[in-house]
Amino acid sequence: MNTFENKQDFSEELKAYRLLVDTCLESVYKDIYPRSLYEPIEYVLSSGGKRLRPIVTMLCAGAVGQKPEDAVQCGSALEILHNFTLLHDDIMDSSPLRRGRQTVHVKWDDATAILSGDVMLGVAYRLLLSSIKGKERSLDMLDAFTQGLIDVCEGQALDLDFQSLSDISMNQYMQMIEMKTSRLLEISAIVGAFYGNANDETVHSIKEFARHLGLAFQIQDDLLDLTADSSEFGKLTGQDLIEGKKSYLIVRASEKNLPLKDKELLDMYIRKKGISMEEIPGMIRMLSSNDVLLDAQNAIKFHGEQAKLHLSTLVESTHQKALMWLTDKMSQRTM
Amino acid sequence: MNTFENKQDFSEELKAYRLLVDTCLESVYKDIYPRSLYEPIEYVLSSGGKRLRPIVTMLCAGAVGQKPEDAVQCGSALEILHNFTLLHDDIMDSSPLRRGRQTVHVKWDDATAILSGDVMLGVAYRLLLSSIKGKERSLDMLDAFTQGLIDVCEGQALDLDFQSLSDISMNQYMQMIEMKTSRLLEISAIVGAFYGNANDETVHSIKEFARHLGLAFQIQDDLLDLTADSSEFGKLTGQDLIEGKKSYLIVRASEKNLPLKDKELLDMYIRKKGISMEEIPGMIRMLSSNDVLLDAQNAIKFHGEQAKLHLSTLVESTHQKALMWLTDKMSQRTM
Repeated sequence: MNTFENKQDFSEELKAYRLLVDTCLESVYKDIYPRSLYEPIEYVLSSGGKRLRPIVTMLCAGAVGQKPEDAVQCGSALEILHNFTLLHDDIMDSSPLRRGRQTVHVKWDDATAILSGDVMLGVAYRLLLSSIKGKERSLDMLDAFTQGLIDVCEGQALDLDFQSLSDISMNQYMQMIEMKTSRLLEISAIVGAFYGNANDETVHSIKEFARHLGLAFQIQDDLLDLTADSSEFGKLTGQDLIEGKKSYLIVRASEKNLPLKDKELLDMYIRKKGISMEEIPGMIRMLSSNDVLLDAQNAIKFHGEQAKLHLSTLVESTHQKALMWLTDKMSQRTM
Repeated sequence: MNTFENKQDFSEELKAYRLLVDTCLESVYKDIYPRSLYEPIEYVLSSGGKRLRPIVTMLCAGAVGQKPEDAVQCGSALEILHNFTLLHDDIMDSSPLRRGRQTVHVKWDDATAILSGDVMLGVAYRLLLSSIKGKERSLDMLDAFTQGLIDVCEGQALDLDFQSLSDISMNQYMQMIEMKTSRLLEISAIVGAFYGNANDETVHSIKEFARHLGLAFQIQDDLLDLTADSSEFGKLTGQDLIEGKKSYLIVRASEKNLPLKDKELLDMYIRKKGISMEEIPGMIRMLSSNDVLLDAQNAIKFHGEQAKLHLSTLVESTHQKALMWLTDKMSQRTM
């Protein structure tokens, strides 16, 4: 039984927030020189995206009694930080596509992608700094933002380490995605809460909500690598498998008592650090017949429910309801 | 006539500061996990170096009445920021050596060098944040640090742009090195001044001192590429020429009315974007016989004197004298 059934549809409200974020982001790249540095940033930041992190910041600020619109700059700083990680991760992972378009290191080159990413961090801090002057918890927001940057790098390092380890436990995997994916959502949420000067108990609930939302989001991402329509998802189907990623699916399959033939397929994947395009359908069949895809769906559902449980401890408000609705949407997303 | 002749030798004092910086830096990489991320940072930060930036921060804090030792963390944050730029620049420039040792992207790989650099930024902000709590001008220090990060990236972008342009004016060159090299020294200096709660006029003098010190330092660096003992300097002789850099020497030579044969050599350098190892001695002869090396020496001397002129407007103190002494040392350095 879903105890947090949402009747209301918040699509329009979130669309309005997304537009505010887009406008704020535009100010950091439009007509800024040198163009060799800011054109790739324009390319990345104007390519749409869900704007999940700034929307979480704005709604969390709203849920603690602040006007969400006031937190658009803080939230946009987090969106820039997020896009910085994508830009650099794509070089490290040699990914060719992002949101259905060439990645920056492919369209330009590695040097451009490194340097544009670097300046994005500076720009993100500048935006955050400009929006928190005079706020009581300004240094808390900066501490959180900085810890988010550190943790997301450490998470990416673990992810890269895992690619050369043969055996990753579910605990190790969960720790890695907590740092690599959940942390930035947590920081987005608590920056919103700090912006609204929330008390410690509320900050804790909001942090836990975002942590679970992040876990659901990442497991969903791992699943969509295989099940999403690639033109809609913006990445190639099975890209993670080609790169030899230790995704939720691979780690979960490793825990299972697989039939011999399936075990051999998994062992080969781990030994060869990935498979070819042609081998993807066979791998999907294996993961499906051993209920690995089903397990992933259940894990997504579990973390989505946990996220909403923590939200339910907040004072009831439209923005709290919008966060509930957003959690459902993210847990059911197909792109 | 040098009106700021220093009798006193500050070597021992600066050595003591350097040790404090080294100890502070150790705390950011020693026994920190994952090692895949922090080992390259240990490699970079424990490789010595002049620690010019933190020493400038400490001495500037001292010159405005603060205990220099108290500013060691702020200064170390700037040293980390500086090393982050070196780490990423070395990837972009495909440099094989730094301080006489393999660069990180060569010893490990590009992905490691990118990610270790990224987390260094986070670590630098964390260190800065931890040391400025309760300080009146904490947000000014963060603003300055952030603007430094942005400017140094923009300076590097200009440097990369210049490599594909055939004609760079001396003005363009000076603007580029102001952003790429002087700015971090400026920020190091004014963070020290803000730390000591200096008034605006003093901050301005300190900023101008550091700007000129940075210009002298960078032109010296360009000159040392050709004149330094490579084992002492820690880089290959003529590395900039091999990379096709538009250094002070190349830009200055381009301004001159060169004999036909020399003009052809310079045109070839610009057309081919660099020269081979064998062609370096001929290029040095050409730059020397046309007084380009002498012009560089004069420019270094000029900016060194300007730096000291601005220092002379500060209240007289031991730390002010140490800054004068340091400026002389840097203008005469051979490594």
